[in-house]
This record gives sequence, C-alpha cells and structure tokens, in this order.
Amino acid sequence: MAENKKLSMEKIVNLCKSRGFVYPGSEIYGGFANTWDFGPVGVELKNNVKRSWWKRFVQESPSTYGVDAAILMNPRVWEASGHVQSFGDPKMDCKNCKQRFRADTLIEAHSKGSVAAEAMTDAEMENYIAEHDVKCPHCGVRNWTPIRKFNPMFITSRGTLEEGSDKVYLRPETCQGEYVNFLNVQRTARAKVPFAIAQVGKSFRNEITPGNFLFRTVEFEQMELQMFCKESEAMQIYADYKAKAQKYVEDLGLKAENLRFHDHDKLAHYAKAACDIQYNFPMGWQELNGIHHRGTWDLSRHQEFSGKSMLYVDPFTNEKFIPNVIEYSIGADRLTLALLCAAYEEQALEGGDVRTVMHFHPAIAPYKVAILPLQKNLGEKAKEVYAKLSKKFMCDYDETGSIGKRYRRQDEIGTPFCVTVDFDTLEDGAVTVRDRDSMQQIRLKIDEVIPYVEKFLEFN
Amino acid sequence: MAENKKLSMEKIVNLCKSRGFVYPGSEIYGGFANTWDFGPVGVELKNNVKRSWWKRFVQESPSTYGVDAAILMNPRVWEASGHVQSFGDPKMDCKNCKQRFRADTLIEAHSKGSVAAEAMTDAEMENYIAEHDVKCPHCGVRNWTPIRKFNPMFITSRGTLEEGSDKVYLRPETCQGEYVNFLNVQRTARAKVPFAIAQVGKSFRNEITPGNFLFRTVEFEQMELQMFCKESEAMQIYADYKAKAQKYVEDLGLKAENLRFHDHDKLAHYAKAACDIQYNFPMGWQELNGIHHRGTWDLSRHQEFSGKSMLYVDPFTNEKFIPNVIEYSIGADRLTLALLCAAYEEQALEGGDVRTVMHFHPAIAPYKVAILPLQKNLGEKAKEVYAKLSKKFMCDYDETGSIGKRYRRQDEIGTPFCVTVDFDTLEDGAVTVRDRDSMQQIRLKIDEVIPYVEKFLEFN
Repeated sequence: MAENKKLSMEKIVNLCKSRGFVYPGSEIYGGFANTWDFGPVGVELKNNVKRSWWKRFVQESPSTYGVDAAILMNPRVWEASGHVQSFGDPKMDCKNCKQRFRADTLIEAHSKGSVAAEAMTDAEMENYIAEHDVKCPHCGVRNWTPIRKFNPMFITSRGTLEEGSDKVYLRPETCQGEYVNFLNVQRTARAKVPFAIAQVGKSFRNEITPGNFLFRTVEFEQMELQMFCKESEAMQIYADYKAKAQKYVEDLGLKAENLRFHDHDKLAHYAKAACDIQYNFPMGWQELNGIHHRGTWDLSRHQEFSGKSMLYVDPFTNEKFIPNVIEYSIGADRLTLALLCAAYEEQALEGGDVRTVMHFHPAIAPYKVAILPLQKNLGEKAKEVYAKLSKKFMCDYDETGSIGKRYRRQDEIGTPFCVTVDFDTLEDGAVTVRDRDSMQQIRLKIDEVIPYVEKFLEFN
Repeated sequence: MAENKKLSMEKIVNLCKSRGFVYPGSEIYGGFANTWDFGPVGVELKNNVKRSWWKRFVQESPSTYGVDAAILMNPRVWEASGHVQSFGDPKMDCKNCKQRFRADTLIEAHSKGSVAAEAMTDAEMENYIAEHDVKCPHCGVRNWTPIRKFNPMFITSRGTLEEGSDKVYLRPETCQGEYVNFLNVQRTARAKVPFAIAQVGKSFRNEITPGNFLFRTVEFEQMELQMFCKESEAMQIYADYKAKAQKYVEDLGLKAENLRFHDHDKLAHYAKAACDIQYNFPMGWQELNGIHHRGTWDLSRHQEFSGKSMLYVDPFTNEKFIPNVIEYSIGADRLTLALLCAAYEEQALEGGDVRTVMHFHPAIAPYKVAILPLQKNLGEKAKEVYAKLSKKFMCDYDETGSIGKRYRRQDEIGTPFCVTVDFDTLEDGAVTVRDRDSMQQIRLKIDEVIPYVEKFLEFN
C-alpha cells in the first residue's frame, strides 16, 4: 500500500501510451467514450492474462467446460434475465449544462467514498444530494432532474425485414451464454453436477461515467464461470471459489495487502450470498472480481421464458432439479490494469538515475526474451537466435542504442530476459542472459536458453 | 474434391451440435439470426486456430506488431473509411412476402454460380433478374422492388447526453483499428517500413442473407494484418503474402486440390490488386481469405478526415510519404469451418462398422490427450495422470463405457492421443498411448508422454 500511494494513475497511463501497452481508442479523432486500444505489448499482456485464467480455471479444472457464445443473442434472453425491465443505473441530468451523471457516483465522489451509495434508494440519494448540496462536476451548478433509470444496454436493430423491426441488444454480461447452453453442454460433455461452464468474451454497457483508464469502460472483457450444483453443496463451492479467486490473483503477482474481500450489503432478491475481491488501485479500493451465489434464479427464468425444461436429471438417484449457480467473474481489463499497477517500480540507481521496471510474472510478460546484438555487425547471428527462440515464445529484437539503453527499454515493458549476442558468441555459441529483476547476468549455450526460460514461465 | 463431394454441410452441422463443437446461438429461444455458440470442444478448436495464426504471422514474423482495438470506434472513422456513405449491398424486397434479399446472391443462386454478379452494376442485375425470371426463393413469386443499397453496419447509440444523440457503429471490419493506430505503433515500436500491424477480433455486419453454418454470419471474427510499405515494394509483398497465406492453410491441413486463387474481376477504385483464396466447401468454392493491395487510400483518408498527418519519415533518407498497404485477412470462423470439413472422415471398418474421425492437426485439436482408466477402480491413478498432463495441455477424462466406445468418442472430436491406464500401470508406471489416425498403440512411461505428445503439437 505504501508503494501504491506513490503510484498515480497518470504514470501508468503515460507508460502505457509511450511504450505501446494501451492507446486511447480512435485517438486521431480525439478518442471515443473512454475506449482503449491495446498496442503491441498490451495485446500480448492481455492475451497472456486471459490464457493464464483459462489454464487455471478450465484446462486444469476437471468438470469445467468452455464456451464462446455470440455477443448478439435473441432479445428474449434479456427479458428472461431481467435486463430489459429493470437493469438501469440511477441517472440525473444537470438542467444547466445538460450533462448526465450517475447519482450514486456523484455521492461517492462527494463523500470521498465514505458513503456507500449503492445501498441507497433513489429517494435517499436525491435527499442526500439536496442536503449536501452536491453540484454538477461539469458546470458547478446544482439544478438536477429527478433520478431516472436509464437502461445501459446498447440497443441496435437487425434489418432483415423492415428497418428497425427487430430490436437487438449488445450483451451486457457474458454469463447468459452459459445459462442458455446449460443443457447443450451438459448433454454433449455428459457432465454431472457439480460442473462449470466458463467463458471469456466482450460485454458492453452504455455507462454514463466510464473512467479511471481501463477500470470502467463501455466495452470490456469478462472472464467468468458458472458452477452448476446441488443446493446442499452451493455454499461450500462459493467458499471454494473465494479461495481459488484469491490464490489466482496472488499467484499472478497481486500482493495480499492490496487485496480484500468485500461482502455485498445489498443482495439481489434472488441471491443468497455475494462478495467482491477488491484491489487497492491508485484511485482506491475497487472491485476486481465477484463471486455470487445466484440460487436457481437464472435457469428458472430461462425455463419460464423459453418454455424449455432446465431440469437436470441425477444419473444415480434419478432426482430432477434445477441446479443452483455459483458465479465467479473477473474483468480481464481490470485485472490487466491491476497487474500493470502491481508490476510498476521506479528504482533509484547509483548516480541518481532512475530505472523503471515492470515486474510482471514471466507467464504474462509481453515478450519473454529480447535478443540484442552487441553491435550491428552481429545482426546475422542475433537474427538466427531470434528465429530459433521466436518459434517458442514472443521475442523482441532490438539493435539500436547502447546495451544499457536497450536493457532499460526492455525493463519498461517487463521483458524478464535479455539475451545479448556478442563476438564470443560466434566462437563459443553462448550468449549472455540478463535477468530483469536482479540484473544478474549468466552465460548460457544458445541451446540452453529455451529450457532455462521455460522454467520461469510455468504458471501452476 | 472427390471426398468433399460426399460430405454434406448437414453432416458437419450435426456432428458439431452432437459433440459440442457448435450449437445454434440462443437455441432455447429458437435461435437468432444465424448466430452460433462454440461449445466445449469448439471453443478450444477456434482458440487454437487463432493461436496458430498469431504464432505464424505475429510471433514468428519479425516486424509484425499486434493490436487489439475497441469494437466501438469514433463514428468519424466510418466516414473516413467510406462505410457510412457507400458501404451497401444491393437489396431487393419481395413485394409479395416482404422478405429482403441480396440481388447478387439471387443471381448467383439462380445461375448456380456461373454468373459473377459481384461484377455487375445494379441495372445489369435488375435486367438479369427480369430476363431470367428470377423468383423469390421464399414465396415463389416474382414481384421485386428496385435494388436499394442497405448499409450493413449495425447502428447503436451512446447515451451520455440526450438519447440517440451519438450514433455509434459496430465495426464492420477490424482493419481500421490498425490504420488509426498506424503512427502509435510505428512510434512506440520504433518500427521501420515495411512493417505490419496485426489484429484478431470480432466484426459485425447486418447481413441480409447469412447462412451456410459458420460461413456467413452477422457476427464473425477476423484474423488480419496490414503491411505498411513503400510503393516500390508493395507488389512483391502482395505476392509474398499470397504464398504465405496458402502455406498457412495447407500446413493446418487444407489440401491443395481444395484450394484455389481467385483474382477479383472488379477492383475497388483505390485498389491496385486483389485476390481471394477460395476453399472447396461442401456448398462449393467460396472465399476463405483475401489479399489486397490498397495503395495509400486508407491512410490518406484518415489524414484528410482527422487532420492528423499520416506521413512516415524514412530514418535513412528523411523522405516523407504515406505508405502503401497490403492487407491479408482471413475469417477465423470460415477457417474453422473449412478445417472441420477437411478433418471429417467416415472410415468403413471390418464388420460393417463406421468410424467417424476428425483428423485435425494436433496443434489445433481441442483436446491433445484423453485419459481413460480401463476400469473405474483405476480412477485414482488415472486422475493423477490427468492432473499431470493437464498442466501442459487440454486433456479430456472419460471413464464411462467400453474402451472401444471411448476411443470412438475421442475420434469424433479429433483427440490425437488416448492414454489408457490399466492394472499394469500401477506396477510399471507405464500407459498405453493410442494414435487417432493409425489406431496403433505403444507403451510409454508416464513421464515420457508429455515430450512424446509435444513433438506432434509443433506448428512451424
């Protein structure tokens, strides 16, 4: 936390822009709605994060099956889920400058986080705003409309017949892809409860106040799974996923002191338990992932709206029941942001110099190895090494500037190993391997580099 | 081609649904607009396809940089690209049954592919339809409206101010994410032309007649790269990518006799050369990927519309110019469909039995290994083997039914290796490894299985 206090979001954003992690979306047109484009190192980082999650929660988890459902779903899905009717954030317009804001966000900002507005009713929020004279952050005037619910689903239409005839939504959450495929997966995988269906994919919310860089965006990627189980085992599974979720982010490099559980004060009417894991971001403690005991709500609603049975038949007892659901969900963009913050370090070196290092776990580092010819006329040998190593990992190749400068560039994008090709390499077939964190150097035969690096990449 | 003729799309669709490759999207609600959801084995197959492409064209390709741009972009992007004004398919409505069709598709279906309608003007298509008495495929009547252009971009709106104030499009192609980030990537990667920016991501088109399973869908995933180069080297790079694109799909398992190049008859006004690679799908020869020489069109348009310079400065000569662009683009869903078709085989066995095998390249097979305890009381040992191997690869575990039945199930999802744990395993620590294609079995120590399998997974 001490080091986190010194870290501003501005530093992270600037490093991301200058080193190719993340650029503002549509930047040449002045950006767009807090969208962000991942650059050459950012796309590798985020893909590695997604892979690490899939490896841990699908590949290494027996009875967990992946899906990749379409973003555009039958609109009835969102009636069944309740999103069409009631999914809405409390919005107020400033009558003076016409900007729209979330009432709960206004209160949380005004109270500097000391008031939990998410637990307040609309009337309570309106009273708070009047009593505490909460003004428009844009124009400074207090002249609000009453709170109105504004459905944050993006709405489009499918033009097969007359224009606008078919309303279509961009999914605001991925989990419905698991619910509607519950029996498809159960049948084709011959799965027995408890089993989980997992998905990684994009969701969209017409957020009124996106912000804090990658933290809240209108377009975001979720990594989540839905565990289908008997009611009697649901609370134990809920507890298990709390532990697994925590271990996962700690294994990736988030420190225990920057993580905390937060039980929800206000549960959805159908939910039996719900908590978040929060991370201590530069802007404060914020939700990183959620674990929810959703009961039979989701499958029951789909049974009701689709007219299709969602009953699971126990193959041993022949008992028929709608399973309970434990949901574990984590934002890929949020986690990437947390990992960027956790990795960042400015080291004061002898002589007053500062070394910026991104201490990513090697499994998620964008490049695993950078190949650096000591001089340009060693390029041929260095490219041979690059060709060999890049069959195995993402590698960078850099031949411009002093070796010191090149090391610093790799430190700033978190490359765990720099491989220097020098004149001795031509004789002895060995290279110098420099470690990002310790800055120690060892000499290895070229053929030893791949197995040496591979050991560090394990993420188990 | 001979074997392809026997293969119907229906067989592929049925296998996909019954074995968990692909389900109809929102199936419990009667589906939706030819969307498809990838099931447990389908998501692995498609992810492996995407990884194989990224490995070949980004990881192992020097001077190629990945990005992952937002799906929602500033609307000005689509004015610059020309999509807002002129991106439209020629549509006709049946006045009798009110269904809407693409005129070119009607003509191609009517002529059984012998007429290249894409090269015809609207007037030529209307004349052809009148002269050849092309009727509505839905109701059988010929009573058409004139051709109208219908913009196939999905339109939504961003609700920050008044509802509907900000029109937003779902991107109809991913490549604009590379063009708008051309200088961001060039600067942060310190890239020198020729260099490429690559992306894998979803695009959306409000297609009037989606169909043929995964072939034409309203939501689809593109794998593409844009190579920025000098005008003088553009045609050589165009030729190089034709060869690379062909080699890639052949290496993945598409047979040369089912592939052909198709040069475009009609070029976009800005294009200097354009061709497709077509694959012999069950429904005939259809586009699998495209390679286009786009000149300076895209960057020039963005310079004009954004007011931002798109000039590249040659670091050696100080020459300033807008680079030419060679585009190479392949549909991840189309390629997955082609690979499903190419992998499918029904083998007549002795005794009249038929074995259905999916001969996927091991690099893209959903599961690399299935672990099968010979009897249930060997489950403990088998699960130990599963835990060990699943740290390394996606593995399946199956303990129900006879070994023969379990082999067949794995054959149908293309698992290259079945590892059987038997009573001897408890004594000698060895397992039987059965090869999908040859059905040959060998005996290996458990510790030898991972390196044995890994050799087959290489995709170079």
